[in-house]
Amino acid sequence: MPRILLPDFVLPEISTLSGMVDTVRAKTPLVQCLTNAVVMQFTANVVLAAGGSPAMVDIADEAGPFARIASGVLINVGTPYANRREAMVEAAHSAQQGGTPWVLDPVAVGALPVRTALASDLLEFRPTAIRGNASEIVALAGQGVGGRGTDSTAHIEEAFDAALSLSRHTGAVVCVSGERDLIVQAGHSESIAQVGTPRTDRVVCVDNGSELLTKVTGGGCALGAVVAAYLGILRTDPFLAAVLAHSVYGVAAEYAERQASGPGTFAVHFVDALAAADGGAFAAHGRVTVADDMAAKNPENS
Amino acid sequence: MPRILLPDFVLPEISTLSGMVDTVRAKTPLVQCLTNAVVMQFTANVVLAAGGSPAMVDIADEAGPFARIASGVLINVGTPYANRREAMVEAAHSAQQGGTPWVLDPVAVGALPVRTALASDLLEFRPTAIRGNASEIVALAGQGVGGRGTDSTAHIEEAFDAALSLSRHTGAVVCVSGERDLIVQAGHSESIAQVGTPRTDRVVCVDNGSELLTKVTGGGCALGAVVAAYLGILRTDPFLAAVLAHSVYGVAAEYAERQASGPGTFAVHFVDALAAADGGAFAAHGRVTVADDMAAKNPENS
Amino acid sequence: MPRILLPDFVLPEISTLSGMVDTVRAKTPLVQCLTNAVVMQFTANVVLAAGGSPAMVDIADEAGPFARIASGVLINVGTPYANRREAMVEAAHSAQQGGTPWVLDPVAVGALPVRTALASDLLEFRPTAIRGNASEIVALAGQGVGGRGTDSTAHIEEAFDAALSLSRHTGAVVCVSGERDLIVQAGHSESIAQVGTPRTDRVVCVDNGSELLTKVTGGGCALGAVVAAYLGILRTDPFLAAVLAHSVYGVAAEYAERQASGPGTFAVHFVDALAAADGGAFAAHGRVTVADDMAAKNPENS
Repeated sequence: MPRILLPDFVLPEISTLSGMVDTVRAKTPLVQCLTNAVVMQFTANVVLAAGGSPAMVDIADEAGPFARIASGVLINVGTPYANRREAMVEAAHSAQQGGTPWVLDPVAVGALPVRTALASDLLEFRPTAIRGNASEIVALAGQGVGGRGTDSTAHIEEAFDAALSLSRHTGAVVCVSGERDLIVQAGHSESIAQVGTPRTDRVVCVDNGSELLTKVTGGGCALGAVVAAYLGILRTDPFLAAVLAHSVYGVAAEYAERQASGPGTFAVHFVDALAAADGGAFAAHGRVTVADDMAAKNPENS
Repeated sequence: MPRILLPDFVLPEISTLSGMVDTVRAKTPLVQCLTNAVVMQFTANVVLAAGGSPAMVDIADEAGPFARIASGVLINVGTPYANRREAMVEAAHSAQQGGTPWVLDPVAVGALPVRTALASDLLEFRPTAIRGNASEIVALAGQGVGGRGTDSTAHIEEAFDAALSLSRHTGAVVCVSGERDLIVQAGHSESIAQVGTPRTDRVVCVDNGSELLTKVTGGGCALGAVVAAYLGILRTDPFLAAVLAHSVYGVAAEYAERQASGPGTFAVHFVDALAAADGGAFAAHGRVTVADDMAAKNPENS
Repeated sequence: MPRILLPDFVLPEISTLSGMVDTVRAKTPLVQCLTNAVVMQFTANVVLAAGGSPAMVDIADEAGPFARIASGVLINVGTPYANRREAMVEAAHSAQQGGTPWVLDPVAVGALPVRTALASDLLEFRPTAIRGNASEIVALAGQGVGGRGTDSTAHIEEAFDAALSLSRHTGAVVCVSGERDLIVQAGHSESIAQVGTPRTDRVVCVDNGSELLTKVTGGGCALGAVVAAYLGILRTDPFLAAVLAHSVYGVAAEYAERQASGPGTFAVHFVDALAAADGGAFAAHGRVTVADDMAAKNPENS
C-alpha cells in the first residue's frame, strides 16, 4: 500500500485504518436503505455481511422518523416510483436535520428524466457522500449526459474533474466506481458546514475489486449501502470511511473471484467473503493510494 | 425429542407428525404472499422448496379473490406501500370470510408508525397465526415498543407473556422466533370461533435452527410463508401445523449451516436442504418440546 | 439436431445458428424489463449472464422514452401495481412506435382479473413475441381460463391451437414453455406489418431445459427477458431469435442441473452456465426440431 505524502493529507497508519474497519463491524451500524426494487434483497444481504443491520424503510411517514435513528442512510434513485420519491425526499431532509450521514447513488441519472430531476432535488439536502459510475457522476455534476442504464460510458479518469467539482459544490465525498475507484473530497477555504471537510483537496484511488461485480446486478448499488454503514460509525472522517468501505468491498470481491466459476457463484462467495472481511483482511489486501490531481487523471503515472 | 405430558396436551407420535409433513408436500399448498419487497424472491423460492406453490398476488382487486382460492395466505407488513396496504386489508378480509388460514408477520411493528397501525387493523380479521421476533410480538401485544428494524431487542422468553396474551386476545397461534422458537396457543373457555382452539394453553419450544438465518434477509419472513403453507394443508390443528413448519425449517437450516462457509453459501444450501426435508428428516432431527409456562420462561430448567 | 424439411421452412445450418448466438453476445443488447417485483433481481442477473445489459426502467415518463433506445423490451404483467401498469402501456406504445421489438409475458393471465385486462390491452401494441406457459397462452388466446398462479394446468400440446390462433391474430411469435417448448409463428397471406412474418406457419419444438427451472421463481419470467435480448439483435427473424433464446437458456439449465444438489444450487449454477453458453454450446447441445402441426400436437410421433 504505497503512500504519497501531500502537504495537507497523509493516510493514517495501516493499523489505524484496519482498526477502523473492525470498529464498524463491532458497532453494527443500522443502515436505512431507500433503494431500487431490483437490488433490495442483495443490498440487505450485503449490509448484513458487512457487519451492519439493514432496514429498507422506504415509505412516507416512516422514512423520515427512521432516518433520525439510523446510523446511516442510502438513497438510490433507481426505480423511482412516486411514493418512493416522496419517501426519499423525506428521508434526506430528516437525515440532514438530524445529522445522520447519508449517501446518494444517482443510478442512471443523465439518461432518464424523472430520476435526474429527483437527484438534483436531493442534492439540496447535502449528501455526505455520492457514489456512482463515471457517467452518473459526470451527469450529476452537470458536465454532460450519457450512460445507458447502469453501464458507464465515461472513462473513470474523465470523471475526475466532475467529481471534484461536484464535491466542491455540495460538500460531499464523491466516489466514482470503475476498474479503479476514485474517492474525492474537495477542500474548502470557507467551510460549508459538513463534518470533516478538509482544507485541501483529498483524492484516493482504490485498486481493489473485480470485473465480476459488474456482472451481478446491485454490485455497485450495494456498495453505496456499505459506504452508508461506514459513514454511520466513522463520523469524524467521512472521506476515510468511504475509502475503507470501497477497499474492504473490493478485497471481498477479489477473494470471491478466485472461488467463482461465473457470476452466479461469484455473488454467493462475495457475500461469504464480505462477512469474513475484517481489519486484518484490509491490512493484508487493501490497495489504497493517495493521488494528486495529475495522478488521478493519469493513473499510469501514479 | 423429549415430551412432557400436560393434563390436556400431548404431542402426537413422531410417526404421525412426520406423516403430516409428508402430507403437506404431497398436496402442494398454494401460498399467497403479500410480503415486503426485500424478500419476495427468497420467499417464493423457499415456498417452492417447502413443497408449496407461491403466488405473490398483492394488488387490490386481485388479492381478495385470490385469498379465497389459496391454501394459505401470508401478510407481512414490511415495506407497506399504500397500494399494498389496501391489498393486505382486502386479502385478510377475504381470507377470514372464505375460511382460508392466514399468517400475520408484524415485521418492525412497534418501531414504525404506518405498519404498526396497519398490523393493528389486520388483527380485526383474526389471523390464524402470528409470527415475529420477540420485540415484534411484544409490540403487537401492546406491552411495549422496541426493536430496531428487524432486529429483536427483547429476549425470547420475555415475549412469552406477550405471546400468550396476544393468542388469548386474538385466537391466533403465536410464534416467537429466536434462538429457541416458542409456539403458543391460548386455550379458551368460551370459544371465539377459531378452528382447533384447545381448552387449555399449549406451548411448544422448537430448538431447531441456525444463527445464520439471522444473517440472510428474509430468514424470518420466509418462515411465515412456510407456516401459511402448513396451515393450508393441516387445517384441523393450526398449532401443530405451525410447530411442524418451524421445526422442518430449522432442520433444513442446521443442515445448510454444516455446508456453508458464510451467509451467502448458507442461503443457497438452505433452499436445497428445505427442498429435501421430508417427514423422515423431521423424525430424525426435529427438536420439539412441550413446555409448561415456567419452562417456557426459564428454558434452562426445562 | 434432426431437421424436417417443410415446403416453406428449413432451419438454417447449425453453424449459422450458432453464429447468431455469438452475435447476440457480441452486441450486448440493452434489455428494458418491466417485470414483476418477485423476479427483478434474478431477471437482471440472467440478462447479464446472457450477454445483455438489463435496465429495469418501469415508471411512467421514463419507460416510454427508454423503450425507444432499448434493444428490446420485456413486459411481464405480474404484480401489476397501478403505476407499473401505466408504465407498461407507455413502454409498449413507445416500442411499437419506435420499432423496438418487445415481449409480452402474460403471467397468471386468466386466473386474475387486473392483469388479464391489462394483457388484453397490451396486445393492441402488437408484441413481437409472447411467452408463457400453456395455461397462460390458452387464456390469452381467449380459449379458456385456468392456471393457479404461475403453475400451468394445461398440457403443452393442448396449447398448440391456442398459440397458432394467438399468433395469427396478433402477428406475434408465440412461445409456450413446458417440458417441451413450442415456438409458433403463423403465416399470413395478408401481411399485418410485422417484421419477418413468414408466408406459412412455422413451428419448432425446443427440447432443452430442466425440471428444476420450475422450482426457481423467475425461471420462466427471466426467459422472457432473454427472448427480448435475442429479438433486439436478430431483428430480421424474430422467430429464429425466440427459438435460439429458448435453446441456449435450456442448454444452460441442463448443465446447471448436473451441478446442482437442489433448486438453490441450481439457480446459482444456472447463472454461471448461461454466462458461459455461447454458439459452440448451442451447436453441441441445442435440440431444436422443426415440426408440422400434427407433430406439434403429437410430439411422440415427430
